[in-house]
Amino acid sequence: MSVYLHDIPLPEAKARLQSALEQADLWRMLDTENIPLDENAIGRVLAEPVWAKISSPHYHASAMDGFAVRVEDTLGAEPGYPRILVLFAYVDTGDALPEGFDAVIPIENVESLDERGEITSAIHRPASIRIRAAVTPWSHIRPLGEDIVQTQLVLPAGQVLRPVDLGAVAASGHQSVKVARKPRVAILPTGTELVPLGSDLKAGDILEYNSLVLAAQVKAWGGDPTRFSITPDNFDAICARVAEAAREHDLILLNAGSSAGAEDFSAQVVEKLGTLLVHGVAVRPGHPVILGVIRNQGTGNQESRSPDHPIPHPLIPNPLIPIIGVPGYPVSAALTGEIFVEPLIAKWTGRQPQELPVEQAYLTRKITSLGGDDDYVRVAVGKVGDKLLAAPLARGAGIISSLVRADGLVLLPRGVQGAEAGDAVDVRLYRSRAELDRTIFCIGSHDMTLDLLAQFLSEHNRRLASANVGSQGGLIALKRGEAHLAGSHLLDPETGEYNLSYIRQYLSGVSMKVYGFVGREQGLIVRRGNPKGVKSLRDLSRPEVHFVNRQRGAGTRVLLDYQLSKIGIPFEAIQGYTLEEYTHLGVAAAVASGRADCGLGIPAAAQSLSLDFIPLFQETYQLLIPKVFAESDLLVPLFVVLDDRAFQQAVVNMPGYDVSQMGRLMAEM
Amino acid sequence: MSVYLHDIPLPEAKARLQSALEQADLWRMLDTENIPLDENAIGRVLAEPVWAKISSPHYHASAMDGFAVRVEDTLGAEPGYPRILVLFAYVDTGDALPEGFDAVIPIENVESLDERGEITSAIHRPASIRIRAAVTPWSHIRPLGEDIVQTQLVLPAGQVLRPVDLGAVAASGHQSVKVARKPRVAILPTGTELVPLGSDLKAGDILEYNSLVLAAQVKAWGGDPTRFSITPDNFDAICARVAEAAREHDLILLNAGSSAGAEDFSAQVVEKLGTLLVHGVAVRPGHPVILGVIRNQGTGNQESRSPDHPIPHPLIPNPLIPIIGVPGYPVSAALTGEIFVEPLIAKWTGRQPQELPVEQAYLTRKITSLGGDDDYVRVAVGKVGDKLLAAPLARGAGIISSLVRADGLVLLPRGVQGAEAGDAVDVRLYRSRAELDRTIFCIGSHDMTLDLLAQFLSEHNRRLASANVGSQGGLIALKRGEAHLAGSHLLDPETGEYNLSYIRQYLSGVSMKVYGFVGREQGLIVRRGNPKGVKSLRDLSRPEVHFVNRQRGAGTRVLLDYQLSKIGIPFEAIQGYTLEEYTHLGVAAAVASGRADCGLGIPAAAQSLSLDFIPLFQETYQLLIPKVFAESDLLVPLFVVLDDRAFQQAVVNMPGYDVSQMGRLMAEM
Repeated sequence: MSVYLHDIPLPEAKARLQSALEQADLWRMLDTENIPLDENAIGRVLAEPVWAKISSPHYHASAMDGFAVRVEDTLGAEPGYPRILVLFAYVDTGDALPEGFDAVIPIENVESLDERGEITSAIHRPASIRIRAAVTPWSHIRPLGEDIVQTQLVLPAGQVLRPVDLGAVAASGHQSVKVARKPRVAILPTGTELVPLGSDLKAGDILEYNSLVLAAQVKAWGGDPTRFSITPDNFDAICARVAEAAREHDLILLNAGSSAGAEDFSAQVVEKLGTLLVHGVAVRPGHPVILGVIRNQGTGNQESRSPDHPIPHPLIPNPLIPIIGVPGYPVSAALTGEIFVEPLIAKWTGRQPQELPVEQAYLTRKITSLGGDDDYVRVAVGKVGDKLLAAPLARGAGIISSLVRADGLVLLPRGVQGAEAGDAVDVRLYRSRAELDRTIFCIGSHDMTLDLLAQFLSEHNRRLASANVGSQGGLIALKRGEAHLAGSHLLDPETGEYNLSYIRQYLSGVSMKVYGFVGREQGLIVRRGNPKGVKSLRDLSRPEVHFVNRQRGAGTRVLLDYQLSKIGIPFEAIQGYTLEEYTHLGVAAAVASGRADCGLGIPAAAQSLSLDFIPLFQETYQLLIPKVFAESDLLVPLFVVLDDRAFQQAVVNMPGYDVSQMGRLMAEM
Repeated sequence: MSVYLHDIPLPEAKARLQSALEQADLWRMLDTENIPLDENAIGRVLAEPVWAKISSPHYHASAMDGFAVRVEDTLGAEPGYPRILVLFAYVDTGDALPEGFDAVIPIENVESLDERGEITSAIHRPASIRIRAAVTPWSHIRPLGEDIVQTQLVLPAGQVLRPVDLGAVAASGHQSVKVARKPRVAILPTGTELVPLGSDLKAGDILEYNSLVLAAQVKAWGGDPTRFSITPDNFDAICARVAEAAREHDLILLNAGSSAGAEDFSAQVVEKLGTLLVHGVAVRPGHPVILGVIRNQGTGNQESRSPDHPIPHPLIPNPLIPIIGVPGYPVSAALTGEIFVEPLIAKWTGRQPQELPVEQAYLTRKITSLGGDDDYVRVAVGKVGDKLLAAPLARGAGIISSLVRADGLVLLPRGVQGAEAGDAVDVRLYRSRAELDRTIFCIGSHDMTLDLLAQFLSEHNRRLASANVGSQGGLIALKRGEAHLAGSHLLDPETGEYNLSYIRQYLSGVSMKVYGFVGREQGLIVRRGNPKGVKSLRDLSRPEVHFVNRQRGAGTRVLLDYQLSKIGIPFEAIQGYTLEEYTHLGVAAAVASGRADCGLGIPAAAQSLSLDFIPLFQETYQLLIPKVFAESDLLVPLFVVLDDRAFQQAVVNMPGYDVSQMGRLMAEM
């Protein structure tokens, strides 16, 4: 029967798993192996300290090309009182100091003389040498052990090997290194609805790529992943697959079936094959996590697998195998990897768990949390002026693009109900400060050319992070100092001008520059063939026409409301007026999928999804940039791109765009 | 004839190479290749933007396990006025929304009823359902394109692929990705004095491991390295090897022979096979760098290798191949990799060059620079209190252990003569702030147990960075707030006490705690069999006995001077009194190699190098810790280790150590 999940706090969940692994003597470095000292050793973890077997240099070595001499022979030499030495030996850099000498004089400080005492061009094989300064004992000699002395610690256990470490290990006399074996991790995708990449898709098919992300995580963290093929939702089939995986792996990731639905077998599988430790952890996203251990049949005893006695190949399976039931939503799956799998691989390989750098940033908008869970919120991070800002991204566990766009994670711990806009929060950063420092934060109206702009800017070492909050939202962000620029197309009905009156209203006191970007058509996006026969805004009031709107504050919504008022159609007369999307593509997708019959938007969005388009209006979309940022180094590449013919051409290749004003300074205020 | 090197500034050197590559159309992404979308794609660089081929979800999907319903049927339902629906469909999370429905109600918000209208346990297959709230259109549905809309930008070109990126690429309908081909880099070690790892070493043999470090760097940066075997210093042999390497590689690293010595052929090889662009760059270490291009014989034309027409396999060699003559000293070689090879691989793969994070830190001591070069100084970095400190490490280009110990690099640019102790400098950090935050800075006297302590602390998530500046140097560092603790064994001749009077003198006003660490023997380290018959300090005045001393401020030097004064031997009477080493092992190495006959030190150092030891004195080596650090979280593991029997046992396993006072609080002042 179905086991209903009951969320427990994260530390307790981790403690239960650790305790079970401790009892099975699996809470330690798994095994060790000797590997050759070559470039493939980078990233491996030292299983024991490296002590120097030899000194480096292992002999007294000349540090220069020059002549080995006896110090006593040089005493008294001065510029005006040169000495001529007949007892010397030419040495190249690295040569052993010949017996009987105790200093080296670099060749450029020596005059080489021939048999007659004349300066010779055979500088390396003179009959005698003339010097004009005394030297101190051991000068220009690298004495034995100068770098590394035999027996000293070269590297501690637990070191993750870097290129220069390999050099030091080699210099201290080793040809191989003892490292932690890579933990073998089996990844089992389960689900009748799953289909492999490349399948012809029908509604309800879910592309199986969680195993790809989990395998890549395991590999990046130093494990050795095995991706199994998809197992359908069949209790016996899943049991058989898990038992099979247990025989050759150290850890099993079972994805998904970890929730409590009709077809969620993971908990029952774990109970049948071993012990269910945890079903449900109070983290969001990702709470339906399962932790357990699986009993392996007919295994060797634990003694044979102690770190000093690595398991022989072929493998003796571990008697107990931990298993993690990974939730099915892609964001939940990836976070489960970070929260549970990464620390386990760290423990098993003897390295420190990864620590993301933490920086304080200010939230650009409120985030809410139920308060019962540790809530991980993905955020885009950028530096605007002196302020590091964190802009919360879409929260849904199904939105993998939010993970891709995430520059960091904000943890709202259990018991915290949320955080307000402007609050300082700690962000665990996925990106380096250097990357954040070259991020251009663009908050405002959505236009499809922003994707193109992002691509062109990336070739100029700039990252464009854009948040689509509508034109008015962009003005507010600029006012708060939370964006470098905003795209805006706000029509002033009284003047017919774009943006300027709004800037005066929202941004009084801020020196602003307004740049031309694109002129574009707005019109109705309708299904192919326009089955509802929509021709103008007047048709929106027909009861059988379902509309999809843009969010409040969007320039397109302002335009709609203005045009509706001109022709006297009240909002209430429109089916779907309250159904909101945040982007032109979102509107197009709603139409394409039949969720609506039409929406106001740009022709490029219609073309993207092969929809029809009824042009209605021309409008002006501009870039509003505070003067201080317009003149900053950060934005220099923006103006280069705006001037770039290749970019302009790429924009006009999309339907309905005009670039005649692109990059032109339209107003300064 | 030999080409003498002439150092030019780094930017000019880079510009010459770039210009030559631009002329050969090689200053761009080399080629692209399609690779399958699997875990091996991580770390590869996208050669073109990824645009979504499909939307995700590609259909309207239920976001919950529950019932698909029509919104209109739910209108009016309230807790006290339930509605019973007969038109509904059970859906699992991810199922397609069945035709005709426009919302999903989660199963937990529904009462499932049987044919008689009674609540049924067959919750998934009821005859009807009862609801107690109306729902809004599209609630608990993930509409088509919620995550990714077909045609949108998923990832920009130049993105270095991470695990979650692979998921987004898969979700947007791709099965493969177009990435930059890995540049093939040939690494050619040359030098008659070089021997492979594992050789029986004789004086003058140099272990060849630069090719290992360079290959590991190339691999870590995204290239594909080939290590060639050692070529002796023979002009024709090197020419043949370079020509061979050019046929199958994009870049040749020729190591070494880049200087201007008798056997340094690299410049001539480049001149014979192509064009020498640069010989000598004004950087230290590493100035004898060679940059050039090699002509390939009988190659295809450039058109066939444009990014749009990747070269077919087997390879058509590039007509021109850049070659870098890499200096022979290991530190120089590794820095040449960072300065020249990494940016080239970045350019060729289309990613941004790596940017080390930069933090401001305060120098613990003066560094000098000739001012003519960009001077790269390796530093250990630690945070003591609020201050980030940079302690310059050994400067020699032969000291690879300084690169291993380096936490960062300080660049003294051309024209800057040096920097003073206490100066704020920018450090390019090799380690994360998190690692630095758990670094214990120990500055003071050297003892061999500090290596053991470092090893044990690393198992407790602490890094011990120790600088050996002698006991007095440690006191000064504590006074300046530049260390968390100092090891010290300063004898007060008047009281016979250790350390306390010195603490009063150097650290007045600082609350200090003094902990017992080890009691140890001091005595004379002599060669095996004691050929000079040294028995006591009195023998140091014999003219045929050569002594090696410790540096000024070392506790061992204080002890020596005190004991010499007691028996009335003047310093001038001792041969080698001015020859200084900074560690006990340094003294032992000097004796072992015949550089001296004896030195004062500890028996463990003598044993390490199989030397004889004449015990003379007993002394006390303590840990001096400012109270504020003694009570900090950072140092908690130190006291755990001091109490750890395993650590104590490891210490007494070395000769001459007593641990009876280890970890005991001896004084608080």
